[in-house]
Amino acid sequence: MVEKVKKRSAKAGLPPGSLVHVGAKMVAESRVRILDYDEGSVREKTKAALEECIPFRDTDSVTWIDIEGLQNIALLERLGSTYGLHPLILEDILNTDQRPKSDDMDSYIYIVLKMLDFDPATLEIVSEQVSIVFGRNYVISLQEGREGDLFEPLRERIRTGKGRIRKLGPDYLAYSLLDTIIDHYFLILEKFAERIEMLEEELVSNPTTETLQQIHRLKREMIFLRKSAWPLREVVNALEKSESELIRPATKIFLRDIYDHAVHIIDSIETYREMLSSMLDIYLSSVSNRMNQVMKVLTIIATIFMPLTFLAGIYGMNFKHMPEIGWLWSYPLLWLVMLAIAGIMLFFFKKKNWL
Amino acid sequence: MVEKVKKRSAKAGLPPGSLVHVGAKMVAESRVRILDYDEGSVREKTKAALEECIPFRDTDSVTWIDIEGLQNIALLERLGSTYGLHPLILEDILNTDQRPKSDDMDSYIYIVLKMLDFDPATLEIVSEQVSIVFGRNYVISLQEGREGDLFEPLRERIRTGKGRIRKLGPDYLAYSLLDTIIDHYFLILEKFAERIEMLEEELVSNPTTETLQQIHRLKREMIFLRKSAWPLREVVNALEKSESELIRPATKIFLRDIYDHAVHIIDSIETYREMLSSMLDIYLSSVSNRMNQVMKVLTIIATIFMPLTFLAGIYGMNFKHMPEIGWLWSYPLLWLVMLAIAGIMLFFFKKKNWL
Amino acid sequence: MVEKVKKRSAKAGLPPGSLVHVGAKMVAESRVRILDYDEGSVREKTKAALEECIPFRDTDSVTWIDIEGLQNIALLERLGSTYGLHPLILEDILNTDQRPKSDDMDSYIYIVLKMLDFDPATLEIVSEQVSIVFGRNYVISLQEGREGDLFEPLRERIRTGKGRIRKLGPDYLAYSLLDTIIDHYFLILEKFAERIEMLEEELVSNPTTETLQQIHRLKREMIFLRKSAWPLREVVNALEKSESELIRPATKIFLRDIYDHAVHIIDSIETYREMLSSMLDIYLSSVSNRMNQVMKVLTIIATIFMPLTFLAGIYGMNFKHMPEIGWLWSYPLLWLVMLAIAGIMLFFFKKKNWL
Amino acid sequence: MVEKVKKRSAKAGLPPGSLVHVGAKMVAESRVRILDYDEGSVREKTKAALEECIPFRDTDSVTWIDIEGLQNIALLERLGSTYGLHPLILEDILNTDQRPKSDDMDSYIYIVLKMLDFDPATLEIVSEQVSIVFGRNYVISLQEGREGDLFEPLRERIRTGKGRIRKLGPDYLAYSLLDTIIDHYFLILEKFAERIEMLEEELVSNPTTETLQQIHRLKREMIFLRKSAWPLREVVNALEKSESELIRPATKIFLRDIYDHAVHIIDSIETYREMLSSMLDIYLSSVSNRMNQVMKVLTIIATIFMPLTFLAGIYGMNFKHMPEIGWLWSYPLLWLVMLAIAGIMLFFFKKKNWL
Amino acid sequence: MVEKVKKRSAKAGLPPGSLVHVGAKMVAESRVRILDYDEGSVREKTKAALEECIPFRDTDSVTWIDIEGLQNIALLERLGSTYGLHPLILEDILNTDQRPKSDDMDSYIYIVLKMLDFDPATLEIVSEQVSIVFGRNYVISLQEGREGDLFEPLRERIRTGKGRIRKLGPDYLAYSLLDTIIDHYFLILEKFAERIEMLEEELVSNPTTETLQQIHRLKREMIFLRKSAWPLREVVNALEKSESELIRPATKIFLRDIYDHAVHIIDSIETYREMLSSMLDIYLSSVSNRMNQVMKVLTIIATIFMPLTFLAGIYGMNFKHMPEIGWLWSYPLLWLVMLAIAGIMLFFFKKKNWL
Repeated sequence: MVEKVKKRSAKAGLPPGSLVHVGAKMVAESRVRILDYDEGSVREKTKAALEECIPFRDTDSVTWIDIEGLQNIALLERLGSTYGLHPLILEDILNTDQRPKSDDMDSYIYIVLKMLDFDPATLEIVSEQVSIVFGRNYVISLQEGREGDLFEPLRERIRTGKGRIRKLGPDYLAYSLLDTIIDHYFLILEKFAERIEMLEEELVSNPTTETLQQIHRLKREMIFLRKSAWPLREVVNALEKSESELIRPATKIFLRDIYDHAVHIIDSIETYREMLSSMLDIYLSSVSNRMNQVMKVLTIIATIFMPLTFLAGIYGMNFKHMPEIGWLWSYPLLWLVMLAIAGIMLFFFKKKNWL
Repeated sequence: MVEKVKKRSAKAGLPPGSLVHVGAKMVAESRVRILDYDEGSVREKTKAALEECIPFRDTDSVTWIDIEGLQNIALLERLGSTYGLHPLILEDILNTDQRPKSDDMDSYIYIVLKMLDFDPATLEIVSEQVSIVFGRNYVISLQEGREGDLFEPLRERIRTGKGRIRKLGPDYLAYSLLDTIIDHYFLILEKFAERIEMLEEELVSNPTTETLQQIHRLKREMIFLRKSAWPLREVVNALEKSESELIRPATKIFLRDIYDHAVHIIDSIETYREMLSSMLDIYLSSVSNRMNQVMKVLTIIATIFMPLTFLAGIYGMNFKHMPEIGWLWSYPLLWLVMLAIAGIMLFFFKKKNWL
Repeated sequence: MVEKVKKRSAKAGLPPGSLVHVGAKMVAESRVRILDYDEGSVREKTKAALEECIPFRDTDSVTWIDIEGLQNIALLERLGSTYGLHPLILEDILNTDQRPKSDDMDSYIYIVLKMLDFDPATLEIVSEQVSIVFGRNYVISLQEGREGDLFEPLRERIRTGKGRIRKLGPDYLAYSLLDTIIDHYFLILEKFAERIEMLEEELVSNPTTETLQQIHRLKREMIFLRKSAWPLREVVNALEKSESELIRPATKIFLRDIYDHAVHIIDSIETYREMLSSMLDIYLSSVSNRMNQVMKVLTIIATIFMPLTFLAGIYGMNFKHMPEIGWLWSYPLLWLVMLAIAGIMLFFFKKKNWL
Repeated sequence: MVEKVKKRSAKAGLPPGSLVHVGAKMVAESRVRILDYDEGSVREKTKAALEECIPFRDTDSVTWIDIEGLQNIALLERLGSTYGLHPLILEDILNTDQRPKSDDMDSYIYIVLKMLDFDPATLEIVSEQVSIVFGRNYVISLQEGREGDLFEPLRERIRTGKGRIRKLGPDYLAYSLLDTIIDHYFLILEKFAERIEMLEEELVSNPTTETLQQIHRLKREMIFLRKSAWPLREVVNALEKSESELIRPATKIFLRDIYDHAVHIIDSIETYREMLSSMLDIYLSSVSNRMNQVMKVLTIIATIFMPLTFLAGIYGMNFKHMPEIGWLWSYPLLWLVMLAIAGIMLFFFKKKNWL
Repeated sequence: MVEKVKKRSAKAGLPPGSLVHVGAKMVAESRVRILDYDEGSVREKTKAALEECIPFRDTDSVTWIDIEGLQNIALLERLGSTYGLHPLILEDILNTDQRPKSDDMDSYIYIVLKMLDFDPATLEIVSEQVSIVFGRNYVISLQEGREGDLFEPLRERIRTGKGRIRKLGPDYLAYSLLDTIIDHYFLILEKFAERIEMLEEELVSNPTTETLQQIHRLKREMIFLRKSAWPLREVVNALEKSESELIRPATKIFLRDIYDHAVHIIDSIETYREMLSSMLDIYLSSVSNRMNQVMKVLTIIATIFMPLTFLAGIYGMNFKHMPEIGWLWSYPLLWLVMLAIAGIMLFFFKKKNWL
């Protein structure tokens, strides 16, 4: 997240609408994949040239153009002119540090959000920006091109004609893309839940400095996750409440469903945040408890040996005239006195509940 | 709660509306119970087949179909087709990790919320998801099937015709179900109140690490309880403000009543949360107070014995030329000096209010 | 407050509208007091039977029925049927664990709120629920029956015809009751202010563990007070904004006045809460400051005596060949060295600002 | 503030609208000052009798009646009857513990707010309640009568006819009074800013317990200041949005200006609050840092001398058979060993970064 | 920020609309720069006299008057009379302690906001107030005159006719100014991000008191940054929602774009605030962890040497009758006993996990 902000400065001073790719290049080459379908038939072109979508532009079938990798600015410019996209929208697509939002541009609707994944190597959340543009008969989805293809099951559903997807329009396809992305947030939350559970056990059994750092790391990731998830609610709500003709009433009930999911995700994030804060408190108080335990032992031992050492010091003095020195039983008697002092002190500490 | 989120991942990638039971199987077999009544008569069928409700579908009497156990997906599909329920609603019913909400589907209203109970064995809150669907002349209630039947008193009231329930429609029955569930929240709050009261006494009399853990456990359960209770207000408010014809004006005043209950519950939860936070503060400051007490005793003892031990050390030195060594009264004099030093220090500490 | 919630469980499972008295019985017998007045005349009946109000029901004079003690359920049922009160309203009246609210029931308005008092014996706030029902020509006030009669000055004002009360309708009487109750909140706040002031002085002069407990106790009572006072604003606001014909425009300006009072009370409560939190901080930092002071003295004394005791130990060794032992001036020289060490250390600590 | 609340209790039980002066008597006698002006001429009467304003009541010139000292209740009653003020308004004027607010009473508008000043002797904020009533052709301002006259520059402006004030109506005069009072808040904020800056320097250079108390005192005053300033925004906003004919459109742009000022003041207060909290954190962590520094020195010294003293103790033992005792070089060797031990420990602590 | 508030007091008591320059004088002389352009041609005058803009006042071309340095009050008065600006607006322009806001004055729109920059010398944020006034055919921008000219790239774009700027009206120019200023906020955020990242590394590797002070300094600057950035959202939102004819519909989509930027900036600020708080927690707990580590070492060493020193003291006593003294093996035996005691203690501490 810290790195993300940095990239923007490359654009300072340029006129608005300037197309500069802000973000890491994730694939060698931008990949275009075209899938055109109606209730009866499906046409698919992988590694297509963008121009191959033009014949479908004026038919009634739904055309799904999926682009991975945003570094090819010429490609995007051609896309913009083919579908009449506003320069600011193209700028937003290229700027991969966008806050999730949806814009109703009359002839098409633009949605941008974060697709989250869990990097199994670093145990960190990785995020990829996904832009979705949909109009009367097309859906364009643009990904940064991180590895792994979340949309493959969806594509398979279109190919096999399973479910209602082939019968419904581009708004339903856009919804399905959103649904796929948002469902993935639950996977992230599960990973969090697992890690929180593990940490809770660690907290009870053996809290270490490592535990503390884990809690802090989770808290930080939670801040990041929250930043991506909070605007989701607005985005979906704006779509559901939208009066655009591009969203059919039948689709709205599905949008309402992912709205509930978004609220659920935000709720869970807030709950985890509270749990992490609570765990931090437990950690701190259990560390200070342990410290106190150690300190008490010192207190007891020091407090017992101090007067005894003093007494030993007394009879180590070299005064000529110390009558006790010469008595026969004074040495064993002193031992008795010392044991008595130690015993009384222990009893006193026990009674005070300090042991 | 942590476990709850996990289950969702089983569904990732499936098309929306796919019926998968997300949740634990709690009863061996789904149980269907049909109760059909009007002002004059009652017909009840326990362990019924779902099809037995079909004759009642088009009569004017109120039909209450109560289903326990959600694992029988075929049963739910038949239910869906009999009463024309939307696939997303069926999906929500099966997904027992739902956030409480209500959906107005024109021809029926769908309500989902959590029924809470207190497990006397583990002293923990157990929750069960209850879905309520009601239309023109029917109410369907679906429970996960945890043991214990909260709705029996209601059934008894219908059988005996006590109260106004037999005279009123399905909206009143749905309200009665909500009322029963929400009233149970007060029982949970009472248990909390008892445990908080016990902890408060413990805090004053004898705070231990166990007390701390109890406070933390209560805080955690409170987070969970709050997550279930907060949306209740919205749910009931949406019903009360609803313009659906399914909710008669006469029922709205009753809904207003449980709205007040929901607000009351949320208020109490917030109050308990504040009290628990306050108790945590008391615990921490009383623990640190005790620690300080112990430390002070060490301080006093160490500070008194240090100079005395030093003096004893001085006269333990073996210098040939130490005039005091040979004097007759130097030993008892040293004792006097030592007692004086100890006395002055004690007086000083007393005056400084350190003792 | 903790006890309050408990009582509700007695009602779980009963149909809504069941009349069960939830709360402690505070008077031996329910007392009814009827006061009927118009601009010209006043008729008063103390220890009246409820039926004595019936003749006044259809006159234009204002009838004030004041009932103390809610345990007589038959009485309330008769009251309900005489004035046509909804069963849920009667239930709310009996349930003394109600959140303050107002309900507009078309032919009458129902208000419920907490009357607070300060128990001089336990120094705790005691609360009593007051319900006010007013219609076209009557006001019914129902109290739990705690000792002390806040409404007597009001009754006296009616009897003597002082002020504008005799000329105005039941809405003004209801307002006067509200005003009397809300004015009493200021008395409670004054008591708080006094105790906070005393605690502040104690904090500066001599903070003890008792001070801490006092702060915590005040914080707890503040939580309780806040729970009673926050809804007041809504209640009065709802009355002021109400479009009911029962509230005359002339009365609204008075309602606006107690609305300001309610806001003022809430403001003060929030201010006191902040002050108590701030005081807690001062307490904790002053306690830790004192502890640090004590610890520093130990540090200084220990750090000074340690090397001295070590030196004394050195010359207490019995080595045959220690040339210093035999020298004539080594003993006084050692004393000088020791004093020098102590002096240098003191100077060093002084310079470091540790003393 | 704590004292303020107390005074209200004098009024408990009185009918609403009873005129009792709640507040300290600040001047020996209430002073009335009348200033009547129109574009062409100014008439001024200081130490006037109230009745002298009557001739101006029905002219078109603007009459400004300024009253200092509220203890003369008869005067206020005459004022009320002359200008037709509602008894509740008179009550609010006398009750100097009012929350800032504005009331639109159709024929006049009532504004009450706090005028703040900085007592140079006690370094504390002193507040005085100012009520402003303005109608078609008059403005009445009522102050408690604290020393110092903020309104003199305004009066001078009227006398000399400087600015647009003589050309505009009573609403502009009322605005000018508000502007004068609110501008004074900036002076208070400057004083705060200065004290915060001084404290920040103290924090860095030499934090003492006094610094802590200063921070707490500032925090407390900030709570008080905030209580006075927060409602200002509502007050000015209500005036700006008011549909009363008493406020001309031309005046609204000026009201918008002081609305911006009020928001600015509130912003600054919140910023200072955050800065004070932040400073408290710095103080606490710097105090604990210093404490840790002191503790570390003890740790190092104690940890170094403990084994040395032990060794000295060993060779102070009187065993008959200790071969080392007799050796020629054992004494200087022991010194070497001791120096080595101390050196190794110092090196170890250095390496561990504890020194 | 603290200094900013101070300057206002110079104005207390002056009538509203008095023109006094509140702020530091940053340039020797106010500089006026006039740029007049339409689609076909550009006319530019640097170091112009204000009067040179008059010929352009009634043409249709867009006139951009850029003024640096606000100390020349006569210049501003002439500007005010030339373009008919309200005195309060001129006052706001001169008062460089303005909260960001926008005012719609019918014939022109006034916007004031903070232009932030990063002083590389002091590593602190410096802010400069920018006022923008735009009407039918002109834009006036007023800067305090800090070094560096953010608007030069914009000017260059106008001169070369690049982009759409020459074709669009003054609203688009005003938007471009806003866009330039707001884009600069991202640069500030990047600097913050860098410093936070550096601090995070420091926190892990080697936290010092300096780190703490850095965190606090960043927190303080964040408070300041937030105060400047929060109102931006309102400002841009007010412009976007404005019904003024001065803002063409085509420009609104650009305003929506910077609205998104403003929200993004605020989001980032909140995220950084949370991260800084979290870092403070890590710092504090890592410092206390280190302290505990040091304390534990003392505990272990002290606890081990105390009984050993005591034993040495015992056999240093001079009693005549101590049989052990004379035994042959008692000295080596004592060493063994001592080693055993030390070993047992170490083992015990190890087992308790204290080492």
